[in-house]
This record gives sequence, structure tokens and C-alpha cells, in this order.
Amino acid sequence: MENNLFHLQYAIDTFYFLVCGALVMWMAAGFSMLEAGLVRSKNTTEILTKNIALFAIACIMYLICGYQIMYGGGYLLDGILVGDDHVASTLSDFAGREDGFEGGSIYSGASDFFFQVVFVATAMSIVSGAVAERMKLWSFLIFAVFLTGFIYPMEGAWTWGGSDVFGLYNLGDLGFSDFAGSGIVHMAGAAAALAGVLLLGARKGKYGANGEINAIPGANLPLATLGTFILWMGWFGFNGGSVLKLGDIANANAVAMVFVNTNAAAAGGVVSALITARLLFGKADLTMSLNGALAGLVAITAEPSTPTPVQASLIGAIGGVLVVLSILALDKLKIDDPVGAISVHGTVGLFGLLVVPATNSGATLLGQLAGAATIFGWVFVTSLIVWGVLKVVTGIRVSEEEEYEGVDLAECGMEAYPEFTSK
Amino acid sequence: MENNLFHLQYAIDTFYFLVCGALVMWMAAGFSMLEAGLVRSKNTTEILTKNIALFAIACIMYLICGYQIMYGGGYLLDGILVGDDHVASTLSDFAGREDGFEGGSIYSGASDFFFQVVFVATAMSIVSGAVAERMKLWSFLIFAVFLTGFIYPMEGAWTWGGSDVFGLYNLGDLGFSDFAGSGIVHMAGAAAALAGVLLLGARKGKYGANGEINAIPGANLPLATLGTFILWMGWFGFNGGSVLKLGDIANANAVAMVFVNTNAAAAGGVVSALITARLLFGKADLTMSLNGALAGLVAITAEPSTPTPVQASLIGAIGGVLVVLSILALDKLKIDDPVGAISVHGTVGLFGLLVVPATNSGATLLGQLAGAATIFGWVFVTSLIVWGVLKVVTGIRVSEEEEYEGVDLAECGMEAYPEFTSK
Amino acid sequence: MENNLFHLQYAIDTFYFLVCGALVMWMAAGFSMLEAGLVRSKNTTEILTKNIALFAIACIMYLICGYQIMYGGGYLLDGILVGDDHVASTLSDFAGREDGFEGGSIYSGASDFFFQVVFVATAMSIVSGAVAERMKLWSFLIFAVFLTGFIYPMEGAWTWGGSDVFGLYNLGDLGFSDFAGSGIVHMAGAAAALAGVLLLGARKGKYGANGEINAIPGANLPLATLGTFILWMGWFGFNGGSVLKLGDIANANAVAMVFVNTNAAAAGGVVSALITARLLFGKADLTMSLNGALAGLVAITAEPSTPTPVQASLIGAIGGVLVVLSILALDKLKIDDPVGAISVHGTVGLFGLLVVPATNSGATLLGQLAGAATIFGWVFVTSLIVWGVLKVVTGIRVSEEEEYEGVDLAECGMEAYPEFTSK
Repeated sequence: MENNLFHLQYAIDTFYFLVCGALVMWMAAGFSMLEAGLVRSKNTTEILTKNIALFAIACIMYLICGYQIMYGGGYLLDGILVGDDHVASTLSDFAGREDGFEGGSIYSGASDFFFQVVFVATAMSIVSGAVAERMKLWSFLIFAVFLTGFIYPMEGAWTWGGSDVFGLYNLGDLGFSDFAGSGIVHMAGAAAALAGVLLLGARKGKYGANGEINAIPGANLPLATLGTFILWMGWFGFNGGSVLKLGDIANANAVAMVFVNTNAAAAGGVVSALITARLLFGKADLTMSLNGALAGLVAITAEPSTPTPVQASLIGAIGGVLVVLSILALDKLKIDDPVGAISVHGTVGLFGLLVVPATNSGATLLGQLAGAATIFGWVFVTSLIVWGVLKVVTGIRVSEEEEYEGVDLAECGMEAYPEFTSK
Repeated sequence: MENNLFHLQYAIDTFYFLVCGALVMWMAAGFSMLEAGLVRSKNTTEILTKNIALFAIACIMYLICGYQIMYGGGYLLDGILVGDDHVASTLSDFAGREDGFEGGSIYSGASDFFFQVVFVATAMSIVSGAVAERMKLWSFLIFAVFLTGFIYPMEGAWTWGGSDVFGLYNLGDLGFSDFAGSGIVHMAGAAAALAGVLLLGARKGKYGANGEINAIPGANLPLATLGTFILWMGWFGFNGGSVLKLGDIANANAVAMVFVNTNAAAAGGVVSALITARLLFGKADLTMSLNGALAGLVAITAEPSTPTPVQASLIGAIGGVLVVLSILALDKLKIDDPVGAISVHGTVGLFGLLVVPATNSGATLLGQLAGAATIFGWVFVTSLIVWGVLKVVTGIRVSEEEEYEGVDLAECGMEAYPEFTSK
Repeated sequence: MENNLFHLQYAIDTFYFLVCGALVMWMAAGFSMLEAGLVRSKNTTEILTKNIALFAIACIMYLICGYQIMYGGGYLLDGILVGDDHVASTLSDFAGREDGFEGGSIYSGASDFFFQVVFVATAMSIVSGAVAERMKLWSFLIFAVFLTGFIYPMEGAWTWGGSDVFGLYNLGDLGFSDFAGSGIVHMAGAAAALAGVLLLGARKGKYGANGEINAIPGANLPLATLGTFILWMGWFGFNGGSVLKLGDIANANAVAMVFVNTNAAAAGGVVSALITARLLFGKADLTMSLNGALAGLVAITAEPSTPTPVQASLIGAIGGVLVVLSILALDKLKIDDPVGAISVHGTVGLFGLLVVPATNSGATLLGQLAGAATIFGWVFVTSLIVWGVLKVVTGIRVSEEEEYEGVDLAECGMEAYPEFTSK
């Protein structure tokens, strides 16, 4: 009986990881649609290709080395690679414990890997939008190899992996807390994107000689809206799965609260971004509303379990205001980010980290600042190096003519909408 | 051991609510895509903005007051807002019961809130399609505040909440039964939509001076089809979650039967609507097939647990015929509903309510009629008042010129497909 | 207590089936979007109509007779149709067993039906893409009645159903193993498609008089990409649910491993197809990448539980190479398959079957060949007969003029994108 109960608990916690992981995998579709909707039609095929390829590369690199770097040791990888032996060992682990099944998170190692692997893909997805419409496809994919196989796993090891940062200091001891990755995933992706954008430069025509900022509208707003809804849905898995365990009352309550708060924050972000845009531009700006939803989601990701739902809505709402202001500010600085990814994931990701201590007494402002600085510094500098080497060796920007014609024909040899647009 | 078993049961029932709730949230994307696909391109950005904003407003209003109005008392809200205390109290509840865990639905209060909040958003989503292409965006959003914060929660309190209608009569006592909301959610949304459409009037050019009814084709049918599939998928959560408990054999069987019947009804609706349209128009009408699927889903929603799957297919098939006839009839009456929402959710929602007694002996035709009249009367009249006040105070219809140019530019300042359409 | 534990196990295994089934149902949307994106705009409405109608027909036919043919006897159907009696009988089954709940897969019969019914729809979905842009809609739907009600259930009975093939030989005894249906579902769909394509002939203009092969680009690549992501996500249910049980450690580990391997194979397919296309065509071909993802998924479907994740990636990668070569080869043979369905599901489905013995010692190469020959032979011949009769009786190909104008106007009377394309 005791054994049977443990079997069930193991099964339900494993299934919970798998369902949440499938939802996070679904976010890859969300990023693809969001970005494809916000670029011009002549650059759409390429961004779709980038998105599906980066997801595939992330999965392979994390399997080959990323997971090992992040969580270390052969133990976890064994958990993936063995079958029946793993059952035997977890059962014997269990037999030696007196406290029933409340003592630890015991579930399939493969389900843990599945949940983690879709996270690394999310981090990389953030980059593709920011460098859209002008970057060489193959250089981008080479960068993806490094980010997903090494750069992200390293900072992941220092945070969720629990390792010391270069053996020097431990972020957990400093009071750093990032529940589901406002910093570890989102700000990290934005840092890599920022490094790329700085080396890449703005799209032709985005900033005029006299300081004008020219709007370059996206070609397909329903697609961008669909992408946002997909991300919103997938985020329930992203944050909800980060509780890491479902199978008892305290954890089930935590998972449920995380779902409620994730939703409440997204809702707050939509409303505040819509109102902010209305006040600033006089119109109900759809793209700002979409970015508001995503900002609300990013803002709550660092701590979705301790706020009340009303607090979560407010945190999301602040994120929604911040993202509008950040997009305007980056344009002032001539940092050209076609989809607003650096603002959504970077600016608001940082805000998400810093607001954690307000509701979670286990985190300290110092710890959050130390974590943010460590993550941003590491990812930004290493990304700058990789982008820089690529710039010298293979080049990272398409030619002016290719940019004018659209990267789709140059890189992919096919148009996304051959019948809808007149050349 | 007994405690551990209860922990697991609590966790699985909570997770079941969360998964079903996430599927219902996904329906918001379905409505957005369906409606965006069925309007003209010049009105697409605005309907997308409305859809994401109404979802956000619904979540916020239901959190602030709607849930409280519908289910009353501080108890349920406490269930959302407290953490460990709730665990303690549910555990002590359990300790006092002799019958093991079969006695009641014990799960996270937050998971219940999450499931309920996405329902109210569904009701509001129904409205946006019917008033498309001519309504002012901000007036619509103000209406959303009232519907989701007050009008829907009131009729929800009288039905699922178990309260007496104005202290006068109790619908449950009369034999009213609406399993997952053919009436409470769908017909209610349609009643609010009808009130809006009557005050708003038809789109320019829809009805000619000599009684012609002009077809105004939707701009993007793949999007509308996608929206229908999303709704079909989300409906498994909508109906399946309405069993309200999964964790024992009887309930697990009920949930499974609800999934099967929901699917069977949608399938029946597609086939019957396709054949009906073929007989009437001579063509395989895609939009009627889509509406047929939705009609099948609405029809079975009032009682998806008692019919056999064959009966469910038939109920869905009748819904599929009804929706085609209803769309034609409303056009005869010059009630202009661009996406057919009033027919799908209103006409077929009423049919769904009335067919319940055929398979569920716990419901009476009198009870169903009393419930339908109460819901429709309440929602229609209060909606008429709110729309009426808005019409006087802020106006609800855009100017003729704005309608001609498209509401996208007027309300949102951006086109949905700037490169695909020639102005 | 023992009883309560069984209740929970029953509930979780039932829920697992339902969640996986909902994911497979979602694949219907994936096929719709993939195919709608890869055809020309003038043939889009019709392929959408075909896809939603075939799903509906599959659900109805499988309910009426397919499930019965495939799994036989009244027992399983009873499991769907009865409610409380079923509970009583499964409970009494349980009471007679001494071994607790580890002895068998006990879950709701309705959940099993739900999972199986979405499989038959998948098989039929494969056909619609291959015959796109020239087939008569109603003839296609009549074919769907036969495939889903009889042809597929028969070969399903010989494999998953365990029956002897025409009472002559038993594939299981020969060492045939097809975990989730590389052959039973995917190659079967491709066989039916191939039979149709051979009788139907190529699209006008696809093959020139002098042997030229003319590319006919799809109208909407974001839609095709979305469809691929939907299929990728849905495949977790397709393969993951095929473990058929979740509720103990060994099965939970198997389900988790299946998720990891399914993902790893898709990733391998993307990367290898992208590289193959780059080497052959000099460009990063998006449509080949999408087909590569699907090929990886099809390849791993025959055995996703025994390979290691690295092996799964390699199996998927071989699938990704094969699909590119197969598409080129079929074009050489003037077999016109607008979306590459025969290559993805047929060629790679066969490969998936043949690679099983490499990691699963329970399967033999002889058994795999016997199974592949049986499935292909049965489905191809019976499909050829049905298509042939249809060709004589109703015709299967639209007129040349209708093909030139697009089947949307001829068959459905409406355009998919009325505002985006100039006639």
C-alpha cells in the first residue's frame, strides 16, 4: 500500500511536469507567431525559419551538454538515460525513508529534463525578435549553439543549479530568488539580444538623419495577437511548473495560486499598457497592449507564488507601463528592436527581480541586485564576444541590397506570402 | 497514510481544475481568431484589441467583485487569498470526516477561482463579435466592466451560486439544470450582444434599400477556422471541468464521458450544418461549417454528461441545423451580427437548455424555461440599460466616415495587414 | 483505503488519456493550418472545409462502427455507453484481484475511446494535403467515410486490436511492433493518399511538357509554420498517450521518456532537413525544415520509449534527410503531393517501422516488414478501389476551369482571403 501510494505520487508529479513542459514548448509557437506578425512581410519566412531552427538547436545542445553544465553530475543525466534501474533506485530511496512521500520531489528525471529543455529554448526565442529583419540566418543559428549549450547553462548553474559564481560567491546565500526566471530566462535572453543589436545596428530607415523615429508596422497583427495568447497560455506551464511539485496540499495550493497570479498579472499589464498608450498616443494601440500582456507575465515570473492576486495585477500593471516607456526610451537611444523584446524581457525582467522582496521575505534587494548584475553581466559580455567573433568571421548583417529586398529571398529563397504582396 | 491519500486526491483535483481552466483561457484566443477572420481587414486590429482587453478586464473585475457576488461570503475569497491557513483548515475539515475523501469536492480555492474567471471572460467574448465593425472601442470596454463585474455574476449567483432570484424563487428548486453554461454563459453573452446590436444598428451597406441582404465576407478564413478549432479544443476544459471533480471512479467516468460527448456534438454540428448549407445554398459553406461546430458545442454544454455519444451527436446536429436557420432569420429581421454569435450562442444556447430534460431526469422543462427566461430577461434588460446610458453619454457607434475608413485607423491608429490590402 | 487508492489511480489514468486525447485532437488544427498554408490562396477555403469536415466524419464513423471493428466485442462499447454500472463492474473486478492496482490498465472506457477516435482522424488528415488543389470536395468526404469507418479500423484490428489478419497470421506473433503508429496511422494515411493521387493525377502546370518540375509556392507560410508547431505539440499526446497507462513509476518513467524522445526526434529532423536543403538548394528552406520536424516525429512514433534521447535525435535526423530526398524523388516520378504528405508520413513512416528493432529487442525486422506490407497493401488496395469507384460514379477531379479558377469558388462559393489577392 505505502508503495502503491508512492507510485501514484510519483506518477502525478511526473505528469504535472510533462503537461507544464508541453505548455512551455508551445511558447515556441507563440514567439514565432508574435515575431512573424510584427516584422514586414519580406522578412517573415526567415524569422519563422530562425524560430523553428533555434528551438531544435536548443533541444539538441541542452541534451548534449547544457543540462549537464547547469545541474551537474551524472545523476540527473542518468535519470534520463536509464529506465528500470532508475525505478529500482528511486524505490529503494523511498524504502529507506520514514516520512512517507512528503520528504522530497521524487519524479521522473526525464520529465525534469523535458521541463528544463523548453526553458532554454524560451531564452533563445527572445533573441530572434530583437535582431529581426537584418541579421544573417546562419550566424544567428551559430549564436544559438553557444547560448543554449553554454552561456545560459552557466548562469543557470549559478542560480537554479545552486553552484557558486566562478567559485566566488553564492547567489542563494545573498538572498537571490527568481522563481521561474524573470532574470534567469527573460532578462538573460534580453541581454543576449541587446549585445547582438548593439553590434548589428538599426534597420535601414528606422532612424532618420534628423532624429526622426520612423514606425515600421508589422505585416500581420492577428498573427502577433495569436502569438501573445499562445505565450499567455504557455506561461501557466512556465510559472506553474516552476513550483516543481504538485502532489500534496501545500504544493497544489502553490501551483493554483501561481496560475491565478500569472493570469492576474497579464491582465493588469494589458489594461495599464492600453491606458498608457491611450494617454501618450491618443489611440488604443494593439501592439502596446500585446507587449503589456507579455510585460505583466515577465514581471510576475520572478515571484508568482507569494503575492495576492490583487498584488499580482498591480505588479503586472507596473510592468505594462514600464514596457511602453522602455520601448520609447530605446528608440530615443536608437537601439532598434523590431518587436520590443529587450523592453519586454529585459527592462521588465529586471523590474520583476527587484519587486520580489516586496512580497517574499526570503529575498533581499541586495541579493536581487547581485543576481541581476551577475546574470546580465555574464550573458551580455559572453554574448558580445560570440557576436563579435561572428561579425568578424562570418559577418552578422545581410548586405544593404538583401535588406532592401528582404531577407526572405536572400536567406530562404521563398516568400512568406507570395500572393498577397506586390513586389 | 490516510492523510497522504487525501493530499494526493486534493492535488489531482486541483490540477484537473487548472488544466481545464487553461483550456478555457485558450478559448479567448479562439474567439479572437474567429472574429478577426470573419470581419473585414479594415476592422481587424480593433476587434483584436477588444478581445485581449475584454479578457483582461474580465479577469480584473471578477477578482475585484464578480466572484464575490456570484459565490458570496468571504469563505471562497479567503480560499484564494490565504495559503497555509487554508491547508490547515481543509485538513482539519478532513480529519472530522469519517467517510474518507468521497464526501466532497476538496481542492484549492484558487484553482476554483481560476476556472470560474475564464468562464466570465467567455461570456464577454461572445459580445465582441456581434457588435463588430461599427462599435466604439472604449464604450465596448466600459460595457465589459459592467457585464463581467456585475451582470454575469448576478445571474451566476442565481444558478451555479444557488441563491434565490431577487429572494423570490430558486431555479434549482424549479428543476433548472445547466451543466456547463449553455444558458448561464452562452445565451447570457448572446443576450448582452443582442441588446447592443439593437441599439447599435446594422453596418452600413449590409441591408439594401430594397430588402437585399448583402454578404460581407470575412477577410481571413484560415484564421476563422483556427479560431473554431481552438474553441473546440478549449471546450473540453469548459465542459470537462464543469464536472467539478475528477478524483474517484464515478467522477472520472463522468469527465471522460463529457469529453466524448462534447466532441461528438461538435462533429454532429459540422456535418449537419454543412449538409444544410449545401441544400440551401448549393455549396459547401465553410463559415456555416464553423458555426455548425460551435453550435454543436453550445448545444451539448447544458448537459454533456447524461446523453450517450450517439445522442450527443444528434443534439449537436440539431444545433448545426438551427444555427444556419437562425442566421438566415436574423438577417431577415435586419439584426446584423457579423460573426453569427447571437445565433450560435443565443438560439442554440436556448435549444441546449430545453433539450436537457430529454436525457437528464433531474431537469424539468418548466425549470429550463424559467431559467432561460430569468437569464435572458436579466441580462438583456440590464445590458440594454448599460448600452443605452453609454449611447447617450459617450456614444456607442463610430462616425459614418470612421466606419467607411475602418475602425482600425480611427480607434487603434494602425492597420492589421498594412501590406496586403490596397487602400 | 485500498478502494480509495484504486479510485485515485483510475482517475489519474483516465485524466492522462483525456489530456493526451485533447492534444491529439489539436493536431486536426495543425493539419488544417499546415495544409492551408502550403496551398495557393484560391484553394484554401476548400482545404479548410475538408479538414474540419473529415475530422467530424471520422468522429462519427468511429463511434458508429470503427471502434467496434477495431477492438471488437460489446465490452468496450459498453464502457462508453454505460455509467454507474461500469463503475460497479470495474470496482468488482478490482475487488477480486489480490495484487493491488498494478495488475492492469483500469481506466474509463470513454477515455480510451476519446484517445482512439482522435487517432483515426489523424490518419484521414494526412490524405487531404496530398490530394489538395484538384479534388472534388464531396468525393473526398465520401472517401473519408470509408477510410475512417472501415479501412483504418480493419488494419487497426490486426495490429493494436490483436486480431489475426484475415484469420491467417498474427502480426504480433511475427514480432511486429508499432508503438504509436508510424505505420498503423501515418503510413496508412499515406497509402490512402498515394492511391488517391495516382488516380487523380498532378495539378495542371506542376510538371512541364519537357520534364520541368515547377514549384507552386504556398500562400501563407506563417500558417504552415503554426501548423507544424501545433502538430509538434499534439504529438506529445499522440506518442505519450500510447504508453496507455501513467499511474505507477515504470509507466510514468516511460511516458516521460516518450515526451523527451518525441521532442528530440523532431529537433533532429529540423536540423538535418535544414542542412540537407542548404546543401542541395543553397538556401535555408523553411518548408523543408517544417517537413523535417514532422519527419522526425513520424520516424520516432513507431518506438519512442526504448531509444535514448541521443538515439531519438539521430532517428529523427535520418527522417529529416529522408523526407527531403523522398520529396525530390516523388517529383521525379510526377507524383504530385502539394504538401509532401506521402513523403512525411509514408516514406518516413516506413523508416520508423524498420528502425524499431535497432532499439527494441521485442520487434523483429521480419515482423516489421510483414506489418508494413500488410498495412500498406490493405490500405492501398482498398483505397484504390474506393477512389476508383468514386472516380467512375461521382468523379474525383474538378473540371479544368474550376481548377484554374480555384476550387474555393467552385466547391465552397467563397474566397479565403477576398481582400488580399487580386483576381
